[in-house]
Amino acid sequence: MEYKILSKIESPENIKKLSKDELDLLCSEIRDCIIETVSKNGGHLASNLGSVELTVALHRVFSSPQDAILFDVGHQSYAHKLITGRFKDFSTLRKYGGISGFMNPDESEHDPYISGHSSNAVSAAYGIYKAKALSGEKGTAIAVIGDGAMTGGMAYEALNNIGADNSKFIVILNDNKMSISKNVGALARHLTKIRSKSSYHIFKYRFRRFLNSIPLIGNSLFHFFDRIKTLLKVAVYHSNVFEALGFNYLGPVDGHDLEAVENILSIAKKQQKPTLVHIVTVKGKGYCNAENDPGSYHGVSSFDVQNGINHNKKITYSDVAGQTLISLANDDDKVCAITAAMADGTGLTEFSKTYPYRIFDVGIAEEHAVTFAAGLAKGGAKPYFMVYSSFLQRSYDQLLHDIAIQKLPVCICVDRAGFVGEDGRTHQGLFDVSFLSTIPDFTVYSPASFEELRGTMLSLKNITAPTVIRYPRGCEIGDYEFTYSSNDFDLFSNNGEIAAVSYGRLSYNVMSAVDRVGNVDFIKLNKIIPVGDEVITHLMKYKKILIFEEGIKSGSVAEKISASMMQKGFSGEMSISAVDGEFVTAADVDTQFGLYGMSVEHIINKLRGN
Amino acid sequence: MEYKILSKIESPENIKKLSKDELDLLCSEIRDCIIETVSKNGGHLASNLGSVELTVALHRVFSSPQDAILFDVGHQSYAHKLITGRFKDFSTLRKYGGISGFMNPDESEHDPYISGHSSNAVSAAYGIYKAKALSGEKGTAIAVIGDGAMTGGMAYEALNNIGADNSKFIVILNDNKMSISKNVGALARHLTKIRSKSSYHIFKYRFRRFLNSIPLIGNSLFHFFDRIKTLLKVAVYHSNVFEALGFNYLGPVDGHDLEAVENILSIAKKQQKPTLVHIVTVKGKGYCNAENDPGSYHGVSSFDVQNGINHNKKITYSDVAGQTLISLANDDDKVCAITAAMADGTGLTEFSKTYPYRIFDVGIAEEHAVTFAAGLAKGGAKPYFMVYSSFLQRSYDQLLHDIAIQKLPVCICVDRAGFVGEDGRTHQGLFDVSFLSTIPDFTVYSPASFEELRGTMLSLKNITAPTVIRYPRGCEIGDYEFTYSSNDFDLFSNNGEIAAVSYGRLSYNVMSAVDRVGNVDFIKLNKIIPVGDEVITHLMKYKKILIFEEGIKSGSVAEKISASMMQKGFSGEMSISAVDGEFVTAADVDTQFGLYGMSVEHIINKLRGN
Repeated sequence: MEYKILSKIESPENIKKLSKDELDLLCSEIRDCIIETVSKNGGHLASNLGSVELTVALHRVFSSPQDAILFDVGHQSYAHKLITGRFKDFSTLRKYGGISGFMNPDESEHDPYISGHSSNAVSAAYGIYKAKALSGEKGTAIAVIGDGAMTGGMAYEALNNIGADNSKFIVILNDNKMSISKNVGALARHLTKIRSKSSYHIFKYRFRRFLNSIPLIGNSLFHFFDRIKTLLKVAVYHSNVFEALGFNYLGPVDGHDLEAVENILSIAKKQQKPTLVHIVTVKGKGYCNAENDPGSYHGVSSFDVQNGINHNKKITYSDVAGQTLISLANDDDKVCAITAAMADGTGLTEFSKTYPYRIFDVGIAEEHAVTFAAGLAKGGAKPYFMVYSSFLQRSYDQLLHDIAIQKLPVCICVDRAGFVGEDGRTHQGLFDVSFLSTIPDFTVYSPASFEELRGTMLSLKNITAPTVIRYPRGCEIGDYEFTYSSNDFDLFSNNGEIAAVSYGRLSYNVMSAVDRVGNVDFIKLNKIIPVGDEVITHLMKYKKILIFEEGIKSGSVAEKISASMMQKGFSGEMSISAVDGEFVTAADVDTQFGLYGMSVEHIINKLRGN
Repeated sequence: MEYKILSKIESPENIKKLSKDELDLLCSEIRDCIIETVSKNGGHLASNLGSVELTVALHRVFSSPQDAILFDVGHQSYAHKLITGRFKDFSTLRKYGGISGFMNPDESEHDPYISGHSSNAVSAAYGIYKAKALSGEKGTAIAVIGDGAMTGGMAYEALNNIGADNSKFIVILNDNKMSISKNVGALARHLTKIRSKSSYHIFKYRFRRFLNSIPLIGNSLFHFFDRIKTLLKVAVYHSNVFEALGFNYLGPVDGHDLEAVENILSIAKKQQKPTLVHIVTVKGKGYCNAENDPGSYHGVSSFDVQNGINHNKKITYSDVAGQTLISLANDDDKVCAITAAMADGTGLTEFSKTYPYRIFDVGIAEEHAVTFAAGLAKGGAKPYFMVYSSFLQRSYDQLLHDIAIQKLPVCICVDRAGFVGEDGRTHQGLFDVSFLSTIPDFTVYSPASFEELRGTMLSLKNITAPTVIRYPRGCEIGDYEFTYSSNDFDLFSNNGEIAAVSYGRLSYNVMSAVDRVGNVDFIKLNKIIPVGDEVITHLMKYKKILIFEEGIKSGSVAEKISASMMQKGFSGEMSISAVDGEFVTAADVDTQFGLYGMSVEHIINKLRGN
């Protein structure tokens, strides 16, 4: 495809001089380029199509990088990348060594801050803003945050902090009525109310004038007004959440009317106090498939532009978990599901249709989700929190303080555990085993196959203590039929003096390697935390032990095994293969296995002592 | 002291039949008992004195335990404990095996949920409420939350979730204008505005009637009203944050007028939608020392009731950290401090006077605090986040996602690391080493003495990567003069074949033991994460290694040392002493050392192989 204007944009300064027609064409070309690239590489589509004009307007009104523009989550930063010098490399989007699918400071000076996890941009931008203020450096910092991300507590903490300050700090609320699927919660309803008063801010402006014009003496009606004038001022001046939190509120404005967005941003720039600009956008704008079904086009794999995405996806671990949860719910009224705005991603779509009153979508609110689950369990329900591994990091304290101390029977189903592929550093599910293992009284299972995941969930239907079942993103990666067993570990014996130890999805690669090498035993862990005494006792007999983990080394199962065996006097050899002390960048999962010594070939070499 | 009425209250049912005079006496006796007990045992004073009438009213209007009453943080639950059957044991408050200073389900069926960390009660109570709804069980669940706790993001996440629901769920906002010290942020200012309109809700009620009475046709003034009536309805009906979030708002009410509080709670009980009741209380009510200086009487050690607390406290690690930070700030304009509502507790009082524009109190908002610090560092400032170990658990994801991935030079000063004594399970600082060690690129230092803490902070004034300096609560526990050295570890050699390894405060006990035993070398770690190669290399020469850690075993430094040494082929003996798989209950720190094998005597025995 030819990109007449876009191909000439090398820096955001270039777009400041464009005519209206050129700008329209630019926006159109940005959309084409996003659709073309995402249809090939996969990525976030609908959110990026919705924020094209907003991004162009931001770069015309402000001057990046002097003005730092932070896109929350960063899954809507593609237009930003395209007009800040990354058009030529954009075909490498989400590839190994290529352009990140999120903001990435290593990539460009125009990406002032990492992004990936939701609701942090306001805090970060305010930090950058304050640092500039302290040092007297020029420029400002602006946070662009979606209405979905605004359900996260961090965003509120930041607003509460900033609203009490008298700084000229700007927050842009990109309101597309969605987070990933339809946005939920009271704030979403509140925004709907604000939006539905299309001329809300005009009325308000007039009413402020009207209030100011009321004399403080006069006839009985005016006397009445005299008494309630103060009340009305409070009410009208702080009539939405943002105003109540000390922000100057501007909007709502149609986010696809470039001129209108530029105008309101220019007004915001002149304000002398914290200002929130409310921009209303359409998720998927300009690509009808996505406009009609923005949820399905939030994050996509490669697809055919004409025909849209293929809805007949291969079955995934998430699907199996969701289906199994329905089985459990069929048999037990107390079973209920919790999601933090991820019903689709965690396989709960069908559950939400079957049991709409037994699923709770709490918004992007992993902290609340875990404590709410704890409350449900305390009250006698059987809650299952389905959550991505990297987002569960948000709940560390709640897992420890709310669930573990009370030993509550909450089941956390950790999706996207292990390498996640193209989403890169911020989304890897490599930390959960290590951080969960620091919390007393949690038991963690790591099934390898669909069948084992199903069996594990069914067998744990009457848990009495905190339980985690973790499984990877996507599909099974091998043909072995790992079945469920109630043992802490399964032994695949070749009467070897060497033992390979692993768990979860990586079991496929280790099993392949062991089969090819022969004379090595494979100890496949089913329950991984705590490490059972039987595992240790069994391992003591080997001369050499090689542990393979699709996770980080620090705090790993391998470290725990090492410490236990050493205390028991083991004097054989020990080798640990895990991700050690670094963040794993984007690549497909096979490449990631290769990079970290976990491909079948790597494992074979290690088992052979090479 | 004689407690005429209080001593007869064995369950909250007893107080439902009391006369007005008897209730007044009861409240007075509750206050006396709280003052008497806290003056002996230490504990939370001002918050408990402020919530006496509220607690009595709650127990008269609702029926615990059928109605679950959850006090957020629980540092205001003493009155609740006294009237739910725990008066007789109340003298054991905060003692080993005694009454907890927070809500504790192990203690009474009237404590429906654990408490300790801030801002979680709304989520938890809503979970219990929903579980009751699912099962059809009788009763409700009520969250009592302070205005300080309301600055925490979790509370907002919960309100956002609940406000969109049509359930009869009640939240009590206990607004004493304080969190621990003066409450900060935009919400605090908003609450001040609401409170300052003393008859706000009466006006509002009248204005609603007035609006409803306006005919839709009429003269020009009324025609004008016709047009803006909708706007006004939105404005007036949702004129504060809670209403905007879908809550029915009742209040504000004087929280020391028992009858008024009972009345408003009775009204709340009849509402058919989520309701927030705004109660205004005075922190320290009834004890003039505390009323005049509520910040100092928030959490206290034992004191003389007549004369009040002794302001000439012994110097603590927190004081040393705060003083050293002032030195750093004197020399470098970029140095700034962040606290999450804990300026006093973390030794920042003096800093806040010296550099008021370079300290940021962000409210009880540890997530925002860390990301804000990351933004500050990204912008070129030198932020120091001073935080308690157990509260830093809230920031795990932000430490990883915001600081570590970007390798930002943020310094986290972790206070209350190790055993914290009487605050018990929810407040122990035993997890930080383990969870921080799972995050790549963090370096963690654990100085033992004041002098070493000072030296460590000064030496790290130009950090270029994420850094943690951790130190315990309170004072030094021994006479050794541990000085700062820039080495990863210090060797105190006795030419032994046995090595004792430790770090931080516990070094005092280990040093004493080593001195008494002789022929054991003491390897005192200064930098504990990552474990340096030199440490491992040095340790390889010993026949036996005993590691002592004032922290949990899983993910400990000891496990990392074990794994590294095993991979290098170490075949000697290894012993690990740490807290293993359990939560440490309240007791004084010496008792806690004793319970977990870390007293000087225990260490001597272990070094001698007993």
